[in-house]
Parts: sequence; C-alpha cells; structure tokens
Amino acid sequence: MDFEPTERQQYWRDRVKNFIDAHVRPAVPTYKAQDAEGDRWKVIPVVEELKAKAKADGIWNLFMPPRNDGHHHVDESYEFEGPGLTNLEYALCAEEMGRIGFASEVFNCSAPDTGNMEVFHRYGTREQKDQWLTPIMNGEIRSAFLMTEPFTASSDATNIECRIDRDGDEYVINGRKWWSSGLGDPRCKVAIVMGKTDFSAGRHAAQSMILMPTDAEGVNVIRHLPVFGYDDAPHGHMEVELKDVRVPVTNMLLGEGRGFEIAQGRLGPGRIHHCMRTIGVAEEALHKMCKRLQEREAFGKPIYKHSVWEERVARARIDIDMTRLLCLKAADMMDKVGNKAAKQEIAMIKVQAPNMALRIIDDAIQAHGGGGVSDDYGLANAYAHQRTLRLADGPDEVHARSIARMEFAKHLPEKGPSANALRDGKGPQADNDSLSSGDMGVAR
Amino acid sequence: MDFEPTERQQYWRDRVKNFIDAHVRPAVPTYKAQDAEGDRWKVIPVVEELKAKAKADGIWNLFMPPRNDGHHHVDESYEFEGPGLTNLEYALCAEEMGRIGFASEVFNCSAPDTGNMEVFHRYGTREQKDQWLTPIMNGEIRSAFLMTEPFTASSDATNIECRIDRDGDEYVINGRKWWSSGLGDPRCKVAIVMGKTDFSAGRHAAQSMILMPTDAEGVNVIRHLPVFGYDDAPHGHMEVELKDVRVPVTNMLLGEGRGFEIAQGRLGPGRIHHCMRTIGVAEEALHKMCKRLQEREAFGKPIYKHSVWEERVARARIDIDMTRLLCLKAADMMDKVGNKAAKQEIAMIKVQAPNMALRIIDDAIQAHGGGGVSDDYGLANAYAHQRTLRLADGPDEVHARSIARMEFAKHLPEKGPSANALRDGKGPQADNDSLSSGDMGVAR
Amino acid sequence: MDFEPTERQQYWRDRVKNFIDAHVRPAVPTYKAQDAEGDRWKVIPVVEELKAKAKADGIWNLFMPPRNDGHHHVDESYEFEGPGLTNLEYALCAEEMGRIGFASEVFNCSAPDTGNMEVFHRYGTREQKDQWLTPIMNGEIRSAFLMTEPFTASSDATNIECRIDRDGDEYVINGRKWWSSGLGDPRCKVAIVMGKTDFSAGRHAAQSMILMPTDAEGVNVIRHLPVFGYDDAPHGHMEVELKDVRVPVTNMLLGEGRGFEIAQGRLGPGRIHHCMRTIGVAEEALHKMCKRLQEREAFGKPIYKHSVWEERVARARIDIDMTRLLCLKAADMMDKVGNKAAKQEIAMIKVQAPNMALRIIDDAIQAHGGGGVSDDYGLANAYAHQRTLRLADGPDEVHARSIARMEFAKHLPEKGPSANALRDGKGPQADNDSLSSGDMGVAR
Amino acid sequence: MDFEPTERQQYWRDRVKNFIDAHVRPAVPTYKAQDAEGDRWKVIPVVEELKAKAKADGIWNLFMPPRNDGHHHVDESYEFEGPGLTNLEYALCAEEMGRIGFASEVFNCSAPDTGNMEVFHRYGTREQKDQWLTPIMNGEIRSAFLMTEPFTASSDATNIECRIDRDGDEYVINGRKWWSSGLGDPRCKVAIVMGKTDFSAGRHAAQSMILMPTDAEGVNVIRHLPVFGYDDAPHGHMEVELKDVRVPVTNMLLGEGRGFEIAQGRLGPGRIHHCMRTIGVAEEALHKMCKRLQEREAFGKPIYKHSVWEERVARARIDIDMTRLLCLKAADMMDKVGNKAAKQEIAMIKVQAPNMALRIIDDAIQAHGGGGVSDDYGLANAYAHQRTLRLADGPDEVHARSIARMEFAKHLPEKGPSANALRDGKGPQADNDSLSSGDMGVAR
Repeated sequence: MDFEPTERQQYWRDRVKNFIDAHVRPAVPTYKAQDAEGDRWKVIPVVEELKAKAKADGIWNLFMPPRNDGHHHVDESYEFEGPGLTNLEYALCAEEMGRIGFASEVFNCSAPDTGNMEVFHRYGTREQKDQWLTPIMNGEIRSAFLMTEPFTASSDATNIECRIDRDGDEYVINGRKWWSSGLGDPRCKVAIVMGKTDFSAGRHAAQSMILMPTDAEGVNVIRHLPVFGYDDAPHGHMEVELKDVRVPVTNMLLGEGRGFEIAQGRLGPGRIHHCMRTIGVAEEALHKMCKRLQEREAFGKPIYKHSVWEERVARARIDIDMTRLLCLKAADMMDKVGNKAAKQEIAMIKVQAPNMALRIIDDAIQAHGGGGVSDDYGLANAYAHQRTLRLADGPDEVHARSIARMEFAKHLPEKGPSANALRDGKGPQADNDSLSSGDMGVAR
Repeated sequence: MDFEPTERQQYWRDRVKNFIDAHVRPAVPTYKAQDAEGDRWKVIPVVEELKAKAKADGIWNLFMPPRNDGHHHVDESYEFEGPGLTNLEYALCAEEMGRIGFASEVFNCSAPDTGNMEVFHRYGTREQKDQWLTPIMNGEIRSAFLMTEPFTASSDATNIECRIDRDGDEYVINGRKWWSSGLGDPRCKVAIVMGKTDFSAGRHAAQSMILMPTDAEGVNVIRHLPVFGYDDAPHGHMEVELKDVRVPVTNMLLGEGRGFEIAQGRLGPGRIHHCMRTIGVAEEALHKMCKRLQEREAFGKPIYKHSVWEERVARARIDIDMTRLLCLKAADMMDKVGNKAAKQEIAMIKVQAPNMALRIIDDAIQAHGGGGVSDDYGLANAYAHQRTLRLADGPDEVHARSIARMEFAKHLPEKGPSANALRDGKGPQADNDSLSSGDMGVAR
Repeated sequence: MDFEPTERQQYWRDRVKNFIDAHVRPAVPTYKAQDAEGDRWKVIPVVEELKAKAKADGIWNLFMPPRNDGHHHVDESYEFEGPGLTNLEYALCAEEMGRIGFASEVFNCSAPDTGNMEVFHRYGTREQKDQWLTPIMNGEIRSAFLMTEPFTASSDATNIECRIDRDGDEYVINGRKWWSSGLGDPRCKVAIVMGKTDFSAGRHAAQSMILMPTDAEGVNVIRHLPVFGYDDAPHGHMEVELKDVRVPVTNMLLGEGRGFEIAQGRLGPGRIHHCMRTIGVAEEALHKMCKRLQEREAFGKPIYKHSVWEERVARARIDIDMTRLLCLKAADMMDKVGNKAAKQEIAMIKVQAPNMALRIIDDAIQAHGGGGVSDDYGLANAYAHQRTLRLADGPDEVHARSIARMEFAKHLPEKGPSANALRDGKGPQADNDSLSSGDMGVAR
Repeated sequence: MDFEPTERQQYWRDRVKNFIDAHVRPAVPTYKAQDAEGDRWKVIPVVEELKAKAKADGIWNLFMPPRNDGHHHVDESYEFEGPGLTNLEYALCAEEMGRIGFASEVFNCSAPDTGNMEVFHRYGTREQKDQWLTPIMNGEIRSAFLMTEPFTASSDATNIECRIDRDGDEYVINGRKWWSSGLGDPRCKVAIVMGKTDFSAGRHAAQSMILMPTDAEGVNVIRHLPVFGYDDAPHGHMEVELKDVRVPVTNMLLGEGRGFEIAQGRLGPGRIHHCMRTIGVAEEALHKMCKRLQEREAFGKPIYKHSVWEERVARARIDIDMTRLLCLKAADMMDKVGNKAAKQEIAMIKVQAPNMALRIIDDAIQAHGGGGVSDDYGLANAYAHQRTLRLADGPDEVHARSIARMEFAKHLPEKGPSANALRDGKGPQADNDSLSSGDMGVAR
C-alpha cells in the first residue's frame, strides 16, 4: 500500500487539471450565455471548440482502458487512440472533470458515451464499431442508453417490459423508456436499447441489447423530464415511445439473451467515473462554502468562526477524503483483480458518493443563504443532479442489498436454521447479482 | 390539556378541507395547463374563479385574528370581514391548505399577504388601511415584503444597507433587495420596504418600514431568482433595485426607527402559517409514498413489505405528528399568552417543520424512483420550496441560537465565571431578540 | 384542543413534583450511600421510609385508572385506594418521577409492578387479587414479569418456548427466561410467567399467563445480567431457569390460551409510563448539560457560546417538547377512545422516547467530558438504562413495522398488483397485531 | 498510489493475526475467569504468559518506529529491540490487536505505554531511558500519563492548574488529575505528569512534563472512575491527588516550558494506534452482527433478510472500509512527510474512528437484543470504551475546530472583511495548534 500518487498518476491528473484551469473554467460564462440564448436543444459552440483543443492536445478518450490489462477482452484489430489509463489513473482525472459540469464532455469522457463506448469496444462486431464507435470516439456523434421504463419498478431489471421480436432479417422493438439521457442532444445518433427477446426465459436469459439509430421510424420522443426544475438541455432526459421500430438483425449486440451479461460488464467503470466526478462536485461545494463563510459576518464575528460551521466543514473534509479513498481503492481493484472481484467495492462507492456529496452541497447552500438555492452559485443545480445519482443505475436500496448479501456470506453462523439454508446454497451468497435498470440522470 | 379538536376547530378545518376536495383539487390540472401556456407572469384564471367562490362561501381571510383577544391592538373603527379564528383554529385550516400549492391563495390566506395584512392591521393608519389593506383583503391586489439584501449576511438584520432618507414631504429609498417574493405577480401593487432611516442609531432604532407602490419610479426589477430551477411564476422571487424611489411621508409605518418592532410583531403568526402548511406538504408526501410503495413490486414482493421502508414510513408518521403538535401548541400559546411569551416555541417550530418535511419528501422521492425528481408527482418542487424555508425569515442557525439562549437562561449554574457574567446581565438571556431579514421563498 | 394543563392536571403533577423536591431529591445521597454499602441485593431503608411518607400523603398508586372510564372492565367488588388519575393526568406525574431513578418506587408506581397490578386488576380472580394484588398495592411485596427468553428472537412472541403443562390440579412450568427484571429484589414474591399451554394452537391461542411464587421449588436464578456494566441492584435483571415448577391450577390467569390477549392489554399504559419517565430523564440531562456549559470556558469564552452547542441544546429542547406532546396525546387517546384505537400512537411513542433521550444524554455526556462517562453525573447510567428501552417490550424494528402497516392501510393505492392483495385481506392491515416479548431492563 | 498491501505489510499483519488466532483468542475465557476472581486490581497471569511467548516470537514493541526515517530524532546510542515498522505497517497490525481487548498488551503495544515510550525515546536523557524506558520495553513495568484535570475544561490545555515548582534540586508537584489510565495496575511504576512551571508564561511556554514515580510520597489515589459501569480493572482510570510530591530536577523532560512541544509530538502515532484498534473493534462488532442476524428468525424469515438490516450492514461495511483507508493514509503520510504535515489527517481520523465504531456497535447491540447490552457478547463494553475516545486526547469538537481551521486557510476569499483579517495573520491559519489535555480512557 502506498497513498502517494505515482508520477504517471500525477502527470495525467495535472494535465487535465491544468487544461480545465486554463481553458474550461474561463469558458464557463460563455457556456452559460450560449446555453441561455435561443433554442435550448442545440449544440453549444464553445464546447465544440474546447473539444477540438483537448483532442489536439491528446487529452481525449482518457477513460478507455489499456489494451491488455488481463481483465478485458480487447479486439486488437480495432485501432483506437488513447493513452490507455488504468481505472485508478483515470479516476484522478475524473475528479478534476467533475468540478465543472460540462468538462467531461470536453475530453470526450462524458456519460452515457463512456459506458456505451466500452460496450461497443468489448462486445461490438467490427462492423458495429466502424459504424458507431469510431464517430463517437472522434467526438462527432453522441449516444444514448435506453433501459429504465416508466411503468415498472426499475430497481429490479427483470421487470423490463420492452420487447424485441425477430421478424426475418429485422428486429422489431416496442416499448416505452424514460430517463433516456442525452437523447435531447441533436448530435445523439445511436441508442443501445435493452429489452426482452424471450419473455419465457429465466431472469438472466430474457434480456438482449440492440443498437437503434435515433432517427429510425417509430422513435417518438414524448417529452423531456426535468430534474427538479432543470431541463439539463441540450443533453436532456427523455421519455420516448418505441413503436414498431425496425432495425437489421446485425444490430443485435453479442447475441440474443445476453443483455444481462453486457449490462453487468458496462456498469463497473461507469460507476467509478460518476463517483469520481462526484468527488469533484463535493470539493467544489466545500470550496465555495469555505470561501463564503469567510466573506460574511453575523453577530459580531465572521461566520466561519461559529463552531457549528467548524463541525460541518470538518465533517465535509473527512467525508470527501474517505469517499475518494474508497473510490480509488475500487478503481485499483478493478485494475488488479477485475470488475467482478471488485463488485462489493463498486456497489459501496455507488451508494456512498452521491449521499456524501448531497450533504455537503446542502450545507454549502445553507452557507450561501438565498443565493444557495438560486442559480448564482451552481449549488442547487449540483444538488438536483446528485440527487438523481441515488436512483440512476439502481437505487441505494438495491446496492445496499447487494453489499449486505456479500457481507453476510463472509460471516456464516455456526448453527441455526438459516445457517443450514446458507450451506444449501439458498443463503445470501446465492443472489448477489441483481441488476438495476436505469441510466437516468447521468447527464454529465 | 385536551388533544381532541373542539367542534369549532373541526368545523372550520372541515369547511376548508371539503372546499379543497370539492373545488381546488379537481382544478389542479386546469391550473397546470393555464400556468404552462404562454406568458409565465400572468394571472391564472382558475385561481380567480376559485377565489370568488371561496369568498362567496365565507371561507376568506381566515387568518385574521379575533378582534379582541387580549394580545392584539385592534382598531375597532376599521371594519373587516372574517370569522376571527384563533391561531389554533386557523392552524388546522392552514395544514389543509398546505396540501395543494396554490390553495392558500384561493382563501386569500397566502404569504406574504397574510403577514402584510397583519402589519397594516396592527400598525397602519386609517388612511393606509383604506388605500391598501382593503383591496388586499378583497383579493383585488397583492403585496410584497422587501427585507433581504444580496450583499450582506441576511441572518443578522442589523446588516441591512437599504437607506430611507427624508427629503421634505417625501422619503427617498435607495437599496438593493432580493428574494422579494410575489413581486413577479402583475397584481402586486404595494410593497413594505425595510431600510435604515438612521444609520447611527442603535441596532434596534435604525430600521424603519415604509410603504412603496410597486409601480413607483425607480423600482427596477433586475431579474427573477429561480429556486432549484423553478421560477415559481407568476409569484416569483425578484431581485430589485430601488433607485431614488420617492414616496410621501405618510407612507411611513408607525414612525421612524420602529421597523424592528414591526418586524417582530409580524413574524409570529406568519411562521405558524408556514409551518402548518408544511405539515400539509409532509402529509401529502407521506400519502404519495405509501401509495406508491404498495403499487410496485421488486425482488418478489411489494416494496412496502421491505422493512427499510417500514422504518421510513414509521419515522415519517412519528415526525409529522410530533411536529404538528408542537406547531399547534405554539399557536395555542400565542392565543393564550401572546406572541412574546411563545417566542421559544415559535422559533422551535420554525426550525423543526421544514427540516422534518424535507426528510419525508426526500424519502418519497426515493420511493418514486426517476418519477420522484421529475415534475410528475410534485415532490421535487415541494422539496425545492421547503428548502427555502430553512433560510427564509432567518436561517436555522439563527433560530437555534435564540432557542438555546432562552434555554440556557432557565438553567443557570450555581458557580463558575460564566455564571457571574450571566447574573450581570451579560448572559444568554440578554440577547435573544435577534431578528433575521428575509422573506425569501415564501411563495405560497 | 387545548394545550394548557387543567387545574387537576396541575394539581397532581405539582404534588408529585413538590414531594420529590422536598423529600426524594434530598435523599439521593443517602440512597447512594446505602446502596453502595454491603450486600447489593437488599432492601434500601431510605426507600421504605419515603414510601411510608408518600403513602401517608396519599400520593400512592397514582397509575391506577379511574374505576369507570368506559374502556376498562373494573371489578367493583374489589376495593382499592387511589385517586384514579386518567392516563393523561398520570403521564404528567410520571415525567416528574422520571427525573430521579428511584422516585417512581417511592409512589408505588414502578415497573414491572404497575403493569402487573393492571393485569391482576383487569384479569385476576378475587382470590388472586386478595393474595397478590393487595400486598403489591400496599407496597409490601414486589413482582416480576417473565416473558423474554434467551434462545429465540424475542422480537416475535410466537417464538416463546416455555411450556406450561397441566398435571391434575397443578400446572408444571418448564423454561428459561432472562431479563426478568426485579427478580433480584428480596421483596419480589410473585411472577407472572408467559408460556405455551398448547404448542399446536395458532399463534394467538398457544400462549397463557400464570402466577408463580418466586420461592417455588424449581425456580433457579442462574445469574444477574449487567446493563453496560451496571447490575441495577437490588432490582436486577435475572436469568432464571424454571424446572418442573408446580403451581395450583387456580394460578392460571383468565384461562388457557389467553396470554396473548392479556399481554396486549398490559402493554399500553406501561409504555406510556416508561415514555413519560423518559421525558423526565431527558429533561434532567438537558438541565445538566445547560448548567455545565455555562460553568466552563474554553478558547476564550464560555462553552455555551459556541454555536455547535446552541444547535444541540436547541435540538434537545425541540425534541423533548415534541416527544412529550406525542406521549400526552397517546395518553389522552387511551383515556378517550381506548388502548386499541390508540395503538399506533402507543407504538410511535414507544419508538420515539428512548431514541430521543439517548441522543440528548449522549450530548450531555459530551458536555461533561470525562465526568460524563463516569458515575459522577448519572448520565452514563441513564444512557445504559435508556438503551435497554429500545429493546424491552419489543425492539424498535417491531414497532416501526406495526406503525408502518397501520399507515399503509390508510393509503391504499387505486391500482396495482399489491392493491389487489390488500383488498383480499392479505395487505398491511391484516397483520398489525404483532406482539413482542420482553420485559427486560424495565428497572424503574 | 497502490491499495494492495506489500509483502512486508502482509507479513507483519499476518504474524500478529496468526498469533492472536492461535494463542490470544483461545485464552479469552481464561482471561475472563482470572479477571473475575478475587481482587480486581491485580496482575492477570495469562497475560504475562502470553507476553513471554510473544516476546520470544519477536512480535514485540512493534510500534517503535524505524531508527532513521527522516522524521524522528533517534538517539543511536540507545539500543532497542524491535522490527522498526513504519506507521503504515504497524497500523495494519494494530487493527488485528483491536479485535480482542487485551491483545495489544500481549505485544507490549498498549496505551498509554506506547505513547510514553515514544516520549522517552525522543525526549528522554540516556539516564531517564535506562531507568524507565528499558523496563517498560521489556514489559516489566507499566506507565501512566497524567494530564486531564477534574476542575477545568480539559478541551483547552491552557486551563491546566497543576503546578510544578522548583525548590533547590527538586521539583514539587501539586495538583489534581483524573482519568489517569493504568494507574490502577500494580505494575505501573512511573507517570509522566503535565503541569505548569511558569503560570505567567504564554500559552505555549507555561507547561512542562516531568517524570514521577508512582510510589512517591504525596501521590494519593482518591478513587477509580468507572466508564459506564465498568471499572476496567486492573488497568483502571484513577483520580489522583498530587500533594507536595518531590522529584529530583533530573526528572524534568527536555526542559522547563517544553511540555506543549512534547505533547504535540506524543499524540500523532498514539492516535493512529487507537484508531486502528478501533477499526478492529468495529470489524468484530460487524462480524457478530452478521452472524447473529443469520442465526435467528422473526416473522417468518431469517432476520438478515429484513432490508432494514441490509441497510445497516451495508452502511457498516462502507464506513469501516472508508475509515480504515483514511487511517492508513494518515499513517502513510506520517511516514513520508512527518507528523506535522499529516496534522489534518490525524485530527480527521481521531474524530472519525470512534464515531464510526459507536454506530456499528450500537447496531450490533440492537441485533443481539437483550444480549447486546449484557456482557455476553462484549458489545456494551466495547461501546463504553469507544465512547471515551470521543473525549480522550481532546473531544471531537476541538479536533473539528482544528480540521476546519486548516481547511478554511486553503480557501481564502478574494474579498470581504474577514479576508483582510486572514491576510493579517489573524485568520484561521494562525491558530491551529490547539492541544487538548486528556489521556482518559485509553485503556487498551
């Protein structure tokens, strides 16, 4: 164990940090102005400019894993650019990106594209890659991931009702999805859709994933879903009806009935990315809180000298640092022993990070008074976004359940009726592979 | 002590409840549709229709206290309509109104008008009443309260920088206010402005309150302030510049230097109103949570059977009932021993109510999954609004300070250095009359 | 509704309070000295002296309900002394008693005698009353209640394994009980034992309650159980083996299979008593905390001026007042609509009171530094005792379950699979009569 | 960064763990029996046997730092045995020791000896070392640390009233100390006493530390202080009067007025040791909780399947892992950049560890029902001990203050009145070297 960043870890983190300080942070006012004027569902020019610059600088597609890390099946024939950062190295960069909402997109590292690119990369055919992965990796188009549905409990993926029926050389997709994040963006050209190809199959064999062009006939966007009062344009979270949408059979990913398997592979790194960006969000909130508390006085002394704020700031510092370490450890385990062995840690950080950030942002709001709930400091917006992360990719409760079941299996009792059940394979260890639908709210 | 409602308490509560069930709740879709179309800063017709009906039914101005209750100085010469409910009787009605956002306006019982009407009623001259109070009580115009300022810590009212200078027969107002709630409404015609007439006077004598027509020259609305992305139109929370605004000297309330005194009188009932509406908000959230949890299944059983939800629902029920009792007790004390003697209880419920509601709404959001953060169930909007109530009329911390100081004064130590200070009048009991600015976010 | 105490409510509360201030509080040092010297399992003389005085003053057996309150089946033929206070009137007295650990015994109002006396009173035969109830009411003997067992989950009373077998004119009792509170006291002469007379009967018909002299052959006290290191002598919490204990058939209470029914009747008032004493405990802790914080200085100012303590004291004041109101409301409901209709409120206060008190005591410990965890201020002891109340008479989780199920039944969904189940009688409303074993830790 | 333990880290951790599993855990019943019989303030034979064995195996004095680590001034002339583990290496061993209360003493790694040995080692003269350090390191005698006083706020070390006056070749010590942990042990032969040599000196120059034989005339043990109801014999926490205690001038450590400096140097590693043992305590509690929940059933299913327990177990797993990482990081920083640079991290783990453990132990108590508060599972005892750690070596509030002040200094505002004060050196960064007295409760 060693808690000092290596030179390479520092190198990439600092490159990202320096680029953000030099180019992204100064562009925030321009971003806000361009975002505010005219149509809300449009390309924002400054983002495209920054993307070109970051790409030219080689700070691009950082999330893509090393080609040969022992845990990934990399198709050597497909060429891709990228430094091949480990999850741990990337995590440190993701924290920096999290400090500004749109920064991750500047480096082509934003959700849901990152998760989708990993799916293409691991499970796509050469043709699928050429058609979709290449332009996404080039930052030319974007993508969506359609999983969550409005009419069933999305905490249990077996509830999914969307159907994918084979009809000759085509599949016909019918269903209703919502929280289809990014589908509002005019650049979004392809969606990965999860649905059932065989309703009678067992819970792990019923699901498939298929590629669907977003301009296909029958893809009807019903409305955008606000998060608190924010539309998150141009990204957006859409409710969309899929009515007899036809795609060629070659659009199926990996094969019928393998959707569950793909979903599990997809989620690990994505969760780490989110969580590390969340650390950055929390650091920003703490930074704003500390500054503000030193700027104002009440009852005869600067507010920061009131001990109730000392408690909150201390708590924030402790919680951020602990959460970061947990996240980095999970990333390191993914690198060294693989996503499957890091399953408990991934679930742990998935629960911990947004809850931690929400408390700190809430305190920061309180420190800012009325300004805190307005848009002046970005805190209310950050709160709204983080709140979605307690639901997206499975609610807290589902992950707590998984964590607990893995934990119980480590501490089997010597006796008792349940103990017998455990030994018969009916105990906690037998059912920890639950999967939650939901790609909602993963706006950044 | 007796915890059963009296006949009269039930009578008025049920009249309000029945009216809401019969007329207001069915009108919610119409309200939403009218609110959504066209200009956001307009009169919403269905509200005016419902107001006319409620007024005709005599469910109108319910908050106005009895004429002669021993604690209020009522000007017998001024006629007003109203049943003269006690604070306790009214509190039960306010809870019912809280269940639907715009219901209180239907009965002409919404903030900041209620607080303003009390100010007019207690402190206004006959002329001021005839000009402003009468049309407000008739539901013809609305009003605003301008206290909070953007550039100072609003937790300490002595920080206020707005100046009110006498110039011949006029006062000239200069300052910057924000969270001026209701100023977005085209019906808003008058504002009570708090500012300093004498910057050199002691903390309790510097402030004055003055009446200002909202269409006066120099009243420049800078922008509306969103609350977690919501504009709360047509009510709105405005940032407004007051630049050389001239009003006649007769617009001064009560006299120069008496603003602090008025502010203290204003706040008691208003806080009770807010808190009781908050109880209604929490009950609605609990209702939605319980229904939702019974509608959906996950992992083989209805979600409501998962014990983590049993804990949350039990906690919610306990917290709502306790908070309601505390609020009703405070109201009863105001009726029987006056606002001043109920000071600690009023501060207690001010802190308790929104914090309680926020936790329950947050759980309800979690129970609704993605739907919870959207606008489909009104929960995210309720959360945003309640969050402002931890800041409006003084942040939690200021009220906690007041409560604690009153408490410490009850438990003086027998010895010790601080004990001496206490007995010298420098102890906690000497400084519990702090006042916070802020009428922000009191949208309903 | 009316939150002012009536004259009668004040009269009894003040009689108890004045007696405690005049006689009990001054006797605390004597009590401690007598308790500390020699054998720990003995009668403490000063308690007997105070009992004689309280009895002579007529402040005695205050908990006994009015003879004819519409909710209780009172045997008019049996004479008993007592003012016949309502639950609400008694609750106010119980709070005063709670401020000093042994005060309730002084008034013959301590657990488990109070609950046992109610059982005798409602369900006992005239002979059982003459033999046991009279001497308990006279303060001559004490009693125990044997329910909880060491080897099964006491949260579910159907798990009870103690057996009561009929053999001619006798019943033979075999089982193992623990947390048999009060069995350490030399004055404890009779126990009510819960066990199964019919293991094959349904969950509500298997249980019976029977009277057992504590000096019967086969009653083997195994050991006393400490609570956080405290033995709670001379009361004590015992683990006891019942081995072929024979009692006459006339000792059966009410009839075979009616134990569950008796248990449910027994618990309501007892919980209110405990909870109101807990309010008194919390008030004492707050009092000590406030005094202490004003006596000491750190970092240049009295500790009470540090805002983190303002927050805690304010929170304590709010929580105590809310909890008291909830408890009084439950008491008032028991008086007016009966224990059954007040079921949810009784469960609510059972959960709320000790959790509230624990937080405040913990803060008070922190305020006292090292002294807080020692025996110098009684805080650690109070914490230990309150901690048992989250387990005794059913753990928090069981009561949260009951509260939630009653709540869910109020908010039935319009549709959905669970809704159907609910309407078929399989829903939450069908199973809210769970009973927990456990009379552990009810030392006072 | 690298989260995998190195071979050397694993080697030492496993040696300790294996020794505990093989020898210490099996000896627990013997320990309990020997502890329970006869005099409570005696040497417990099995501990001495285990010490001899551990010493022979070379698992001894593990806490002593490497001789030459760049951050410590090691007296090369003084020979000591020990593997010279880094703080990080030792931390992993300390966690294992924490799982059983008396394990750390077996390896001569228990408080307050470890801290005291470091003081001797760094600041002692060769004569002081020969006389005291050698027998402590050999496990022949034990030591105490006398800092906390009963009559002043121990959160602020400048309050200390104990006086150390020079009189010829002797110092005369007068004062009252309490929470003098370990002073109850018959093997305790020397104490380090903190007191003031110059009451008129500034806050950092008034204090000195001096060595005092525990059998010196005038050392009067007043009483032992229980922790909750536990006496922690034979270690014990004593209140002791120092009345004209005379020691030779050669007993002064480092020099008059340097007590503050020594105290600061002493605390770093000691806090890490405590915190890592606390991690072990929390792991034990979680282990017991998980086992118990799988052994029992209630309401038709094993308790571990109730989701409220899933939440608690998941929370426990997350909190333990995060806290461990924070502690290990602090240890690593102490190794690499020194105690001073790790100041914020040390304060953070000091606050975090016991609070984390208390919550988990409390949940484990709840899972064990009545057994949880008894001595059967060691949980109540663990709770009582951990509770002292929120007070010992400075209460939470003092450390939160330090953490916050260091944090505020990182986020200076650009403007505002406080900002100026900050830049003038009067801001938060100017006062983060507070020191708390208190060595209370550091029993293990």
